[in-house]
Amino acid sequence: MLRNDQLDQWDRENFLHPSTHLGQHARGESATRIISKASGVYIEDRDGTRLLDAFAGLYCVNAGYGRTEVADAIADQARELAYYHSYVGHGTEASITLAKMIMDRAPAHMSKVYFGLSGSDANETNIKLIWYYNNILGRPEKKKIISRWRGYHGSGLMTGSLTGLELFHKKFDLPLSQVIHTEAPYYYRRQDDSMSEEQFSAHCAAELEALIEREGADTIAAFIGEPVLGTGGIVPPPAGYWQAIQAVLEKHDILLVADEVITGFGRLGTMFGSEHYGLKPDFITIAKGLTSAYAPLSGSIVSDKVWKVLEQGTDENGPIGHGWTYSAHPICAAAGVANLKLIDDLGLVANAGSVGGYLNAAMKDALGDHPNVGDVRGEGLLCAVELVEEKATRKALDPTRKVTASIVSAMVEQGVIARVMPQGEIIGFAPPFCLSQGEADKIVDATTQAIKATLG
Amino acid sequence: MLRNDQLDQWDRENFLHPSTHLGQHARGESATRIISKASGVYIEDRDGTRLLDAFAGLYCVNAGYGRTEVADAIADQARELAYYHSYVGHGTEASITLAKMIMDRAPAHMSKVYFGLSGSDANETNIKLIWYYNNILGRPEKKKIISRWRGYHGSGLMTGSLTGLELFHKKFDLPLSQVIHTEAPYYYRRQDDSMSEEQFSAHCAAELEALIEREGADTIAAFIGEPVLGTGGIVPPPAGYWQAIQAVLEKHDILLVADEVITGFGRLGTMFGSEHYGLKPDFITIAKGLTSAYAPLSGSIVSDKVWKVLEQGTDENGPIGHGWTYSAHPICAAAGVANLKLIDDLGLVANAGSVGGYLNAAMKDALGDHPNVGDVRGEGLLCAVELVEEKATRKALDPTRKVTASIVSAMVEQGVIARVMPQGEIIGFAPPFCLSQGEADKIVDATTQAIKATLG
Ligand SMILES: Cc1ncc(COP(=O)(O)O)c(C=O)c1O
Ligand SMILES: Cc1ncc(COP(=O)(O)O)c(C=O)c1O
Repeated sequence: MLRNDQLDQWDRENFLHPSTHLGQHARGESATRIISKASGVYIEDRDGTRLLDAFAGLYCVNAGYGRTEVADAIADQARELAYYHSYVGHGTEASITLAKMIMDRAPAHMSKVYFGLSGSDANETNIKLIWYYNNILGRPEKKKIISRWRGYHGSGLMTGSLTGLELFHKKFDLPLSQVIHTEAPYYYRRQDDSMSEEQFSAHCAAELEALIEREGADTIAAFIGEPVLGTGGIVPPPAGYWQAIQAVLEKHDILLVADEVITGFGRLGTMFGSEHYGLKPDFITIAKGLTSAYAPLSGSIVSDKVWKVLEQGTDENGPIGHGWTYSAHPICAAAGVANLKLIDDLGLVANAGSVGGYLNAAMKDALGDHPNVGDVRGEGLLCAVELVEEKATRKALDPTRKVTASIVSAMVEQGVIARVMPQGEIIGFAPPFCLSQGEADKIVDATTQAIKATLG
Repeated sequence: MLRNDQLDQWDRENFLHPSTHLGQHARGESATRIISKASGVYIEDRDGTRLLDAFAGLYCVNAGYGRTEVADAIADQARELAYYHSYVGHGTEASITLAKMIMDRAPAHMSKVYFGLSGSDANETNIKLIWYYNNILGRPEKKKIISRWRGYHGSGLMTGSLTGLELFHKKFDLPLSQVIHTEAPYYYRRQDDSMSEEQFSAHCAAELEALIEREGADTIAAFIGEPVLGTGGIVPPPAGYWQAIQAVLEKHDILLVADEVITGFGRLGTMFGSEHYGLKPDFITIAKGLTSAYAPLSGSIVSDKVWKVLEQGTDENGPIGHGWTYSAHPICAAAGVANLKLIDDLGLVANAGSVGGYLNAAMKDALGDHPNVGDVRGEGLLCAVELVEEKATRKALDPTRKVTASIVSAMVEQGVIARVMPQGEIIGFAPPFCLSQGEADKIVDATTQAIKATLG
C-alpha cells in the first residue's frame, strides 16, 4: 500500500462524494476514511484501523471481502477480453454464462435478463420497459408507477422519485409527476396501535386500492416494492402483506416490480425475496449481491408475460431503443459468474439464513428490554434497532440530539461499522454472508455497549 | 478459451440485449457474434474471425484492446480491495488519485468530479445538480433543459429525453416535458443551401434564442451538447457555432453542459473537446475514454461556479441526497488511473489527432467524388461517410433499401467493423487511438470497396 501524504488534500480538492456534506468535506471539517484493504468481514483503513463491517459496504459485499476466486476471475477476464459491447446481439462467454446462471436461480416464470450497472439504472430500465409494454398493448394512458413511502429504488431523477425518502426529494424537485406513493408497510409505526399485523396488511392493501381508484386503474402501470424495506429502515413486511397487495394489483391489472437489489441472491436466507414471501413479480431488479460489489453490475429480469410483449414490440417496431455502453460488461459479468459460484460452493445463502437468525435473536435478547429500544427487527442477514425516547408510547427521540449518529460513532470506536439509516432513529445491520456466530456476538456487544454508553 | 456449444442457445434463451431486435434474436433469426479476445485495434470472435474494430467497441476502447498495463491495474486492485463505498467522505487511493488526474486534465475553471458508471447516469447527475443549483439560488422555475435534435446523451428516461433521436423516443413516451430540443448544428443538412457555415451557426444561435424567448429565459436552466455530434451522425460543428451558442447562453444565464463522453480524453486530438472548440462549460460529462471501457466508469465534472452553490446547498440543507452504490468503484478507478497514464505515456492523444487527420483526408480522397457520397466529415479520430441517392440535390436514399446496412455488412466480410449510425444513411468510424496509418488505409479500402460493390 502506497502511503501518499497528499491523498487527503487531493480528496478534498477534487472529489465530489455521494451522500456527503460537501461544504464540510471540502473545508476539512469532517472526518474522511481512506480504505486500503479488506478480508472476510473486516476492512482496514490506511492508518491501520481494522473494523468489522456489519453493513457489507452498502449491503453489497455479500460474499465477504478479499475473495481471491472473484478477484482472479476479474483478472483473467481483464487479460482475455476487457470489453466488447452487447448491442445488436453481441455477447461474450462471461455475459451469456451469467445470464444463464441468473435465470437458473430466478423464479420459474421469469424469462430473460437485461444487464445494467447500478440498481438505479436497472429500475430506470424497468420503467422504460413498462411504458413500452403498455404502449405495445395499446394502453397509452396506463403509465403511472406506485411506490411506497420509505421505499428506496435509486437516486436518479425517476428512480429517486420512486424512492420515498425526504433526503432524496428535497431540493431536487422530486418526485416527478409519473410517480405516486402509498403507505409504507411499517407495522411498528402504524397509526392505529390496536391493529394486528394481518389487519395492518389489510389496511395497507385498502390504502393502495383507494389510491388506485382515485387515480383510475387505467392510469396505473406498475407497483414497485422491496420484499423487505431496506434504506427506509430495514422493515420486514407484516404478516400477509404481500398476499394482500398482490391481490389488489392482480385485480387492477397492474404489474409488480420486486426490487431485490438488497434481497436478491441470498440475504434473506433464500435465493430471492420473491421466493421468501411468495411474490410473483413481472420484473425483478438485481444488483449488489449479483457480484458482491466486486464490479458494478445490475439487472432487470423480465417475466415470460412481459417478454412476449417485448418481442411483439420489436416485431412491430424494429430494434429496441435502449442500451448502456457498458451493459453486460465482460469484467463485471465474470465477477458475477465467480461470485454466484462461490456463494453456492460455500453454502452462503444457507449461512445468511442461519447466522442471520442468530444475529437477530441475539440482538433482541440483548436489547429488547432496553427502555430506549422501541423495536428490534430483521429477516435473514438484515437487522435494525429502532431507538425511541419512550418505549411505551413509541415517542420519537429529538432528532437534533443525533442520538443514533452518536451511537454508531461509539460503535466504530469498538471496531464495528453499522449504519445510521437516513430517516428515523434506526441503526442498520447487513453484514457479509460469511459472518460467524462469534462475529455476530461482537456486533451485538458493540451495539449494546454503545447504546448503554450513550443512553444509559 | 472455452468452446461451449450451448452458448448460442443460452444467449437466445436468457439474455435481453440492448439495441437489439428482441424477437429475431430470441428466435435465432439474426446473427450473433460472441467475442472472445482482442488486441490493439483487432477483435476476434469464438469462431476465429478477426476483425479490425474501426468503432472501438462503441467509441470507447480508446487505448486499444489487450492493454496489459490496464488489465494488471484492475487485477491488482481486485486483489487489494475490490470494493468500498465512497459515501459520507469515504475514499480509496485509486478513486482519489483518479479524481486528481481528471482535474489536472480538465479545463482550469472546473472544480470537482462526481463518479458514476455510465454516460447516461452522469448526465442524470448533471440534471439533478442543475435543479439543485437553481433551487439553492432561489430560482425554482428555472429548470428546463435544452438539448439538440440528433444529440445523444443517454438512454434513461430523462437522458433518453435529452437524446434527440427518434429510435430512443418512440414507444417510450419520451421526451419528458422538462426537456426541449433545438436545431441540430448539421451544416450538410441545412435547409437553406446558400448559407455559409458562419451564417448557419448564426441561424442555429438565433433559433436557440427564439426558443428561449418563447419559453421564457427564467424557465431554462441549461443547454446540453456534445462538442461534436456523435451518435446523431458524427457531425463536427460548423465554423463559429460554439461561440454563437455560448453568447446566447451567457446572455440568458443558462448553464452549459458539455457532454464529452465521446470527445473527452483525446478523441479530437486534444484532451477535451471544450478546449478544442473554446467551450467554457459549467458541467463536463465524461465516460468511455476515462477507462477506455476496461471498466464501467463515468463522471460529472462541475465548475468552480457550480461547486460554490453546491457547498452553499449542503451548508444550508445537510448532506446531498445523491449517490450510486458503485460511485467511485475502486476497480473502475484503478482502470482509469492506469488508462490515463498509458494514454500519456504512449502519446495517444497526439496520435489520435495525427492519424485521425490522415484517416479523414484519405477517406475524402477515396470517396469524395463518388456519386452516392454526399459528405465525408470528421474531426480527430471521428469520421463519417454520408450516403445519398443524388449528390447534387442531397436527395436521401430510400431507407427501405437499407443501403448503409448492406455496405457495413460487406465491410465485415473484408474484416472491418464500422457502424450504421441510427438516423440517416451514415457510416461511422471511431477507431482506437493506437490506429496506424496502415490500419487507417485498410479502413478506407474496405469502405471504398464495399460502397463500390453495393452502389457501383
Ligand atoms: C432496493 C434498492 N434498489 C435500488 C438501489 C439503487 O442501487 P444503486 O445504488 O446501485 O443505484 C438500492 C441501493 O441501495 C437499493 O437498496
Ligand atoms: C455523448 C454521449 N453521451 C452519453 C452517452 C451515454 O453513455 P452510456 O452508454 O455509457 O450510458 C453516450 C453513449 O454513447 C454518448 O455518446
